[in-house]
Amino acid sequence: MLTAHERSREDTAALMEGIGRRARDAARPLAIAGSDRKRAALTAMAEAILRRERTILEANEDDVANGSEAGLSGAFIDRLTLTQARIRDMADGVRAIAALPDPVGEVIAAWERPNGLKIERVRTPLGVVGVIYESRPNVTADAGALCLKAGNPVILRGGSDSLNSSSAIHVCLVEGLVEAGLPEHAIQLVPTADRAAVGEMLKGLSGNLDVLVPRGGKSLVARVQQDARVPVFAHLEGICHLYVDRSADLDMAARLAVNAKMRRTGVCGAAETLLVDRAAVATHLVPILSALDAAGCEIRASAEVMAAWPRASAATEADWRTEYLDAIISVRLVEGVGEAIDHIEKFSSHHTEAIVAEDPAVVERFFREIDSAILLHNASTQFADGGEFGMGAEIGIATGRMHARGPVGVEQLTSFKYRVRGSGQVRP
Amino acid sequence: MLTAHERSREDTAALMEGIGRRARDAARPLAIAGSDRKRAALTAMAEAILRRERTILEANEDDVANGSEAGLSGAFIDRLTLTQARIRDMADGVRAIAALPDPVGEVIAAWERPNGLKIERVRTPLGVVGVIYESRPNVTADAGALCLKAGNPVILRGGSDSLNSSSAIHVCLVEGLVEAGLPEHAIQLVPTADRAAVGEMLKGLSGNLDVLVPRGGKSLVARVQQDARVPVFAHLEGICHLYVDRSADLDMAARLAVNAKMRRTGVCGAAETLLVDRAAVATHLVPILSALDAAGCEIRASAEVMAAWPRASAATEADWRTEYLDAIISVRLVEGVGEAIDHIEKFSSHHTEAIVAEDPAVVERFFREIDSAILLHNASTQFADGGEFGMGAEIGIATGRMHARGPVGVEQLTSFKYRVRGSGQVRP
Repeated sequence: MLTAHERSREDTAALMEGIGRRARDAARPLAIAGSDRKRAALTAMAEAILRRERTILEANEDDVANGSEAGLSGAFIDRLTLTQARIRDMADGVRAIAALPDPVGEVIAAWERPNGLKIERVRTPLGVVGVIYESRPNVTADAGALCLKAGNPVILRGGSDSLNSSSAIHVCLVEGLVEAGLPEHAIQLVPTADRAAVGEMLKGLSGNLDVLVPRGGKSLVARVQQDARVPVFAHLEGICHLYVDRSADLDMAARLAVNAKMRRTGVCGAAETLLVDRAAVATHLVPILSALDAAGCEIRASAEVMAAWPRASAATEADWRTEYLDAIISVRLVEGVGEAIDHIEKFSSHHTEAIVAEDPAVVERFFREIDSAILLHNASTQFADGGEFGMGAEIGIATGRMHARGPVGVEQLTSFKYRVRGSGQVRP
Repeated sequence: MLTAHERSREDTAALMEGIGRRARDAARPLAIAGSDRKRAALTAMAEAILRRERTILEANEDDVANGSEAGLSGAFIDRLTLTQARIRDMADGVRAIAALPDPVGEVIAAWERPNGLKIERVRTPLGVVGVIYESRPNVTADAGALCLKAGNPVILRGGSDSLNSSSAIHVCLVEGLVEAGLPEHAIQLVPTADRAAVGEMLKGLSGNLDVLVPRGGKSLVARVQQDARVPVFAHLEGICHLYVDRSADLDMAARLAVNAKMRRTGVCGAAETLLVDRAAVATHLVPILSALDAAGCEIRASAEVMAAWPRASAATEADWRTEYLDAIISVRLVEGVGEAIDHIEKFSSHHTEAIVAEDPAVVERFFREIDSAILLHNASTQFADGGEFGMGAEIGIATGRMHARGPVGVEQLTSFKYRVRGSGQVRP
């Protein structure tokens, strides 16, 4: 394994250039590979992961030992650590992707023209995908499998602290590719810890990288979004809102607030701000805050809310812009759905917002006027997830409006082309 | 009207900054504007164009006079010149866009989850569109109307030689917006001939420009594709192929070859290379070349083809890479559909390719293995056009694989969001 000190910046540029070229070369054979062949490769990958469990665990032990020595945080080490159960989950994940329908070749739309031309829009692979992730070795398998399913060559750049684990997993993926007769460079892992490799990916590998998917903390995503010369599928943060309308069912509102905030506080779909209709203050506010409080949630509130719930601390403007990713929620009152929408359009990261209401006109307005990737009615924001959407797996959640939005599953990793069938038509 | 000499580069930067900000401000009111309101605005625009016909023609006379004085080419002047008929076509085009179904709010997909959540994917506007075009004043109306229909603010930057004409048309568009109660900055025309304005658009107007559409010659498109920091919907060139298989109907093949090449030689969907199956040389080659020759087409051929058609001039490697946009076609033989696909994958600009064949297996292979935006079977490549596809109107044709591909009509100018309806579901 080479380290940053062993490989000069120029070497890394040349290395990445070669990786890009090999990925592009793999694109066509992969695009025309049949569904059976891709499924066989994915199944073989899952089997290889299980068969090489011992090797993967040993490689991971090295990473964990190095990480502990380097003084990495407990949370970091936890994400880095693989167990037998996690490896089996990984293999199951790959099998689940194998079982998904092949998106490539799917007819998305079909129509006939008055002149008899039959037009179809069919899915094609998107191109070479680059995935830049932090030290979660399981992303190697997830992202590799998902890209393969959509017929896209992928270049994986995992966190340097998990390079041994990722490499051991990558060997299994390549084994599956080769066993099924697919190009071994369809899934490449950047084999160096040199950070210059990321810079090369951001520059687009001389046109051989079509889209970047950063997976990790805010600073990684921010850097990729700012510096990438190719399109990026990502969300910088999930400042998700829950709005409780005057027409809301009280029990439901309290239950949804607790789940949206507290089920897992560290996920991007966790609610960060609760907006309560001023007309519901007397009835809904205190019971909802009591439920949150009982669940262990800290409440940061506007002055009006504090009048009803004095235990809250005072929220500042900064709170409306903060993704806590913790057991903290900001709370303010709004003048009905109109002001809720204004607040959300001003402060949201356009990831996920939910409304609790029984009045259908209010729900429709919320759905129509808010431009976030996911809007939910009478359901928890924590459903913002490709698996929960039935996509089988996701490579991440995107908040951009270009190409992919919301959970990015295999479908969003495809493009399309038109097939037109005629019987000798010439254009007049 | 300000010229490049009157406005310094810094002024232009500030001007464009303001244009970007006003476009972004118009995005939300436009996104939530109802279909009726957008239709009313478009209808009012068409009426204003007809009502102001005289003013538009006078402004155009100024542009044409200036252009002639500046020694612009005849073809350029022809594209620049408006007539009463062209103005009426323009108004009809805007009316046709008014009559299209509103893409915004359309449910593209809907499904239900086992937990009862009902998920819908619905179309939303894409964002602020920038259109950079050469001196075809009618693009002002086409592009402005199309973007409005999809709910997108648009910034139009027309060729400096048509600024008077474009401004006169733009006045009509703004009149329509205002009459319907829509933000007047939903359609802005860059009011300066300073080329620095284009540079500012390429930089993305501080995040206030979401996508760029260049319309014009190859050098304009190349510059935008190379320098833009935002996504670009475009095609650099249309090196379109027609492949005649051994199973082709001979009469059909000759008719399609002549139409694909000669109907209009200057359009991007015109065929530039003819590939003939070696197994069809004795039967198909000479009749097809005779038909092309009779239609006035120059033939540049490989040695094998020249043996059968000595009047051809010799093709070089450069011919396979050339978009003639003229009455010239390059011709070579290939060893069946396999070699035709290899040739196309190597030399095509991935715009449009057609096959003439009766063997369904050959057609399927052509359709599966070639990754161009449009593939046609037994039909002319000149059908590569949004109108011919039934899209009503197009802002251009894209050869990229990100977001939009093929003819870019109103649908491709949208994004989407998810609406999820529940009944109190929390995530376990």
